[in-house]
Order: sequence, then structure tokens, then C-alpha cells
Amino acid sequence: MLFLNINHFNELNMKRENILLGHGSGGKLTHDLIDKLFVKYFSNEILDAQGDSSILPIEGEQISFTTDSFVVNPIFFPGGNIGNLAVAGTVNDLAVSGAKPLYLSAAFILEEGFSLSELEIIVKSMADDAKAAGVKIVTGDTKVVERGHADKVFINTSGIGILPKNRMHISSGKNIEIGDKIIINGAIGDHGMAVMAQRNDLNITSEMVSDCAPLNGLIDAAFAVSEDIKFMRDATRGGLSSVLTELFEGKSFGVEIEEDAIPVHDNVLGMCELLGFDPMQVANEGKVVMVVKAEKAEEIVLALRNHTLGKEAAIIGEITVSHPGKGWIITTIGGKRVIDMLAGEQLPRIC
Amino acid sequence: MLFLNINHFNELNMKRENILLGHGSGGKLTHDLIDKLFVKYFSNEILDAQGDSSILPIEGEQISFTTDSFVVNPIFFPGGNIGNLAVAGTVNDLAVSGAKPLYLSAAFILEEGFSLSELEIIVKSMADDAKAAGVKIVTGDTKVVERGHADKVFINTSGIGILPKNRMHISSGKNIEIGDKIIINGAIGDHGMAVMAQRNDLNITSEMVSDCAPLNGLIDAAFAVSEDIKFMRDATRGGLSSVLTELFEGKSFGVEIEEDAIPVHDNVLGMCELLGFDPMQVANEGKVVMVVKAEKAEEIVLALRNHTLGKEAAIIGEITVSHPGKGWIITTIGGKRVIDMLAGEQLPRIC
Repeated sequence: MLFLNINHFNELNMKRENILLGHGSGGKLTHDLIDKLFVKYFSNEILDAQGDSSILPIEGEQISFTTDSFVVNPIFFPGGNIGNLAVAGTVNDLAVSGAKPLYLSAAFILEEGFSLSELEIIVKSMADDAKAAGVKIVTGDTKVVERGHADKVFINTSGIGILPKNRMHISSGKNIEIGDKIIINGAIGDHGMAVMAQRNDLNITSEMVSDCAPLNGLIDAAFAVSEDIKFMRDATRGGLSSVLTELFEGKSFGVEIEEDAIPVHDNVLGMCELLGFDPMQVANEGKVVMVVKAEKAEEIVLALRNHTLGKEAAIIGEITVSHPGKGWIITTIGGKRVIDMLAGEQLPRIC
Repeated sequence: MLFLNINHFNELNMKRENILLGHGSGGKLTHDLIDKLFVKYFSNEILDAQGDSSILPIEGEQISFTTDSFVVNPIFFPGGNIGNLAVAGTVNDLAVSGAKPLYLSAAFILEEGFSLSELEIIVKSMADDAKAAGVKIVTGDTKVVERGHADKVFINTSGIGILPKNRMHISSGKNIEIGDKIIINGAIGDHGMAVMAQRNDLNITSEMVSDCAPLNGLIDAAFAVSEDIKFMRDATRGGLSSVLTELFEGKSFGVEIEEDAIPVHDNVLGMCELLGFDPMQVANEGKVVMVVKAEKAEEIVLALRNHTLGKEAAIIGEITVSHPGKGWIITTIGGKRVIDMLAGEQLPRIC
């Protein structure tokens, strides 16, 4: 397959005085904002680790803690709604840190005039997904702002999980070794393109469906066959590219990905080519990237494929001794292309 | 003093199809929305307790967990900004549950075009307050929405604290007895009226200043002199009335408050009378209501008064055997008035 890699936006930086949509992209600008503002002031040893969840020592236990706000537009899309996203997103941030997700908060910012019946559908979706994922929503908050000062509904979920001591290395990936394999549990770009198609009311014959799902069950299935999982991250905003960049950036190893090995659905690929998007930079909401011991890779992929959410799981690349701190894609025609994080904004409000 | 008690809004109910500003008031409509929608779907034994924080059993420890979104308008006001509020609000929710606040999350929803320098002031305020309160901001999130789809900045903070086993009764107030005294740490209504004055650019000679502050240090000072504190709640949206209503509603005891005993600053009282507000229903961001053993009440008030944030602390009433499930104010002229929760919206986006 051919990945187009056109960036519609020049790289922007913090010197601009005002917030740009790109500051919410999950790509370079978001990272800049985090590093140059939030980490600058909030800095402490736990925050600075910058995992998807933070690991908190509480009375001898290790607790994972994470937060995410959801502002997706439209709030209903093929495959889910903002409520499904709010539960899956936070459950997944906990699960990829190696933790068992236990408790969620749910805080709603509602626009005056928003339909209570739509809110009820969303709340019910959250309840159903929380139940399915085995987590409890234990605390909440509701704020209402005047018409025109929000957009229907924004949801924040924060989550708490318990992190087994033998999984504390997963967030940092500090046990990664040369030769380790990189796995993904299925096709990329479904969520981003499903929301995009819905938002623009595109008349597409082959409907795209978001992959939005809590992944803790799938991850448990992988651990059941092997504890040799050395790193996990869910590929959300910024797509697979952002996760891979976070994986290799500043490290003593490199990453090599086989373009042919990355699962992408034909309809997503077609739409990406049409619109000039790189599927590797398109958001997912049910995809986990794992770095695992080479000898266990096939076994873990089989375990993933036996789970509903991993039927298209594949080994997509490996950790290399060459080009440390960089990532390369080996393209279908045998060329090499650098893996790059999204610079500006591709799809605002994708989650 | 005379408390005006004019409600500008009729009571509204969930049968209306759309979200009203009053659903965010912290009064009756908010309680309706919580009970009839969120609790209906999310119900579990932890959420149903409906404390300011939820108490989570994690591997033998008791963890307090809370969440709050902040949408105050304007974002800067005399005495603080939305960042101060976001830290104080969540620290206070933990502290009034009896917990020692430890960790916060910080999630930002930013409007495209919002000033980065204003954001920096807000973030710095949060860092300063977190440090002063002895909590760490350990995880965060940033989303950006298009111009006109949010209002500058909304902040969600969630918080985790550890709850000593001997303070587990505080959230529910289950140890409350007839004769217990009701204490507040100072004057009511400052936050609401300061924001109100700022928002409407009222030309007021005697400036009102928000009481926004983290109260965990003050609460520690009270516990240092006595563990006989049986219930605490911070009086935020919905004011003192909402806290008192939550205290007596459905209980086998009543509440009696001496109107003369409630501290209110003259400028706040004047503005309330002018605008037809009841100070008891106006928001605070640095006020805790405590129910304590009668014999220890004076001692606890003295401890509060020795702290910067409790100089005007006072005993304002007591738990009574008469009129169970109801609350009464004994007015200055010797009359009686029922304590009632705010029905609709008084001051939208006060926190």
C-alpha cells in the first residue's frame, strides 16, 4: 500500500501568541505546549515521566492515574458516540500502562439547550461500556454554559487502576531490547476517517466504522500467554506515527516498520489517498501498539487474533540497533521513509 | 441581618427536553439531573454515596477520588483566576471528605485563539497553589476546539487522596448526634459576588474579593485540636443552603441556624440585597461547613481562627431533635424561615 505523507500545515511554534487548533492535534504542537508550558510549571518526578497514565505510590501500592477530555465532533458517529469514547479512552490509557482499570470519574460540560434525550443515550453508552470493561464510574460533575459557549457536550473522564509491580516498566519501555518486535492489534485509521466522513456528510458507499473500544480485556488476553510485553501505548490522536515517535525519540535504539505489514482497511486507505492524509497519522480509539520479546511475538499475535478486538493483529516492525532515536518505514516498493509526528492539526476534535 | 430569599426562577424539571442553565446551578435542578440521569445509569455502591469525593477500597487502603470541571466567567476575577479555582476546588473536595489530598490531574479545553500568555498565568497559579497545598499535578490533557465552540478555557481537575480509616464517617455524616454544633470558617458569598461584580463591571467602591483557597491546611489545624469532627462539606455552587440541605435531607434530625451568627461581609450583604440574592445561596470557594461534637465546638473554632483562612470562623447552628429532615433559620427578629436549596440558576458559570 502507499501512504501519502502530505502535511497541509507548516510547523508552528509557541512563539505565536494564541492557541491554534494544532495545539490539540496530539502531534508536535501539542507536545510543544505540554513541554514548554504545562511541564515547565507542573514539573515533578511523576508528571515528568509522561506516560499515558501516571504511576502513584500510595501506601506501598502503585496506582495508575490518568485524565482525558473528549470534545469529538459530531458527538454521534458510526461505531459509537462521545460517551463510548470517554470510557474507552481512559480505560485504554490505564490498560496500556499495564494497570488493571478500576474506577472512573465522569465530568460533563453541557451547552444550554442540549437535548436531554441525546445526553441520556450518551450516559447509557458510558454505563454499558464501563460495565463491559469491568470499571465503576464513582464520581462526577456537571457544569452548564450558555448557548454558544460550548458545543453540545464535552466529557472529561479520569481513571484509576492498580499497577502490578511486575508491570511497572511498561510505561517507560525501559526493558526494550534490540530485536524486539512491534505489534498492533488491527487496522489503523478507522476512527479518524469514520468521524471525518460523518462530519462532512460524505457520501461514501463503503461505510467506515470507528474502532472505539475498551482494550483492557484484549490486553489481559495478551498477558495471559506472555509477560514479555515491554511497552504499550494506544494510538489515538496523532495516530500510529505519534506512538512510534514517542517510542524511539531520544532513545539508543531505532524503529523499523514494514509498510506492507500495517493493517489498513481499503475504504480508509482510499479516503486517506483522496484527502491527502497519511493513515499513520490518523486517530484510532481501539488500537494498542506493543513492543514484545521477539520469541514471544507470534504467540502474542495469535492470542490477540483470538480476541474480538484483535482479529487483524500483526507484527509490523522491530527495534533496531541502526539509526538510534529515529524511525523508518520500509515502503512497499523497497524505499525508506522517516516516521514523523503530525506537525499541525489534521482533524480537529477527533476525540 | 436580613436575608432576602427571592427566587427568580420557577422550579423546573427533567421533563423539559433540553439542558437549562439551572442544570448547572448546584441547586435542585442539578440534583435532579444527577439523580434521574447519572445515578440512574452509573449506579454503584460507591457513586450512590454521593460524597464530595468517592471512597475507593484499593488493596486494603481507602482512597478518596473526586472530579470537577471549571467554567467560571470571567476567568480572572478579584482574588484569583480559573486556575486557582481548579486547584482549590478539587483539593477542598478531597479535604472535606477527611482525606489528605495527594495528586491532581489537570485537563484543559482551550478555545482556538485563546491567549497563550493568559494560559501561562493560569497554569502558574495552579502550580503555585498545588505547591502551597502540598499536592502534585501528575497527569494532564489538552484539547483545542474551534473559535466560538468553547469560551477561552475550561479546566477539569480530578484528585486523589488517602483517607485515614478513622475519618471514613465524615463524608456520610453517619456519626452526627443531636446537639452537635455547626461551624463555618468565615464569611459567606464572597466568591459569588466578586465574580458577579467583575462580570458585570459593576462600579462598586468597596471591592469584593473571592475567598478561593485550598482548605486542607485549615482542616488539618482543626483535626489537630480534635478528631470530633463528624461531617464536613465545602459550600460552593448553591452556597451554604445547598450544604445544609444535603446535611438534613432524609435524616432523622433537623438543623437550626442562627441568622445573626452567620458571618457575611457588609459589601456582599449590600450587593445581595440590591440584586435580590440570598447570601446563603451564593457560591463560596474557601468555606467549609463542619458538624462537630458540642463540647469541642469552641476549641475547634479557636483553632480555625488561628489560621489565615479561618479568622472569622463561627458556630452558626446546631443539630436538633425537632423537625427531622428539615432546616430552619432563626432570623434576627426572632422569626423562622425554612432552609431551601436553590431551585433554578442564580449565577451561571460561577465556578
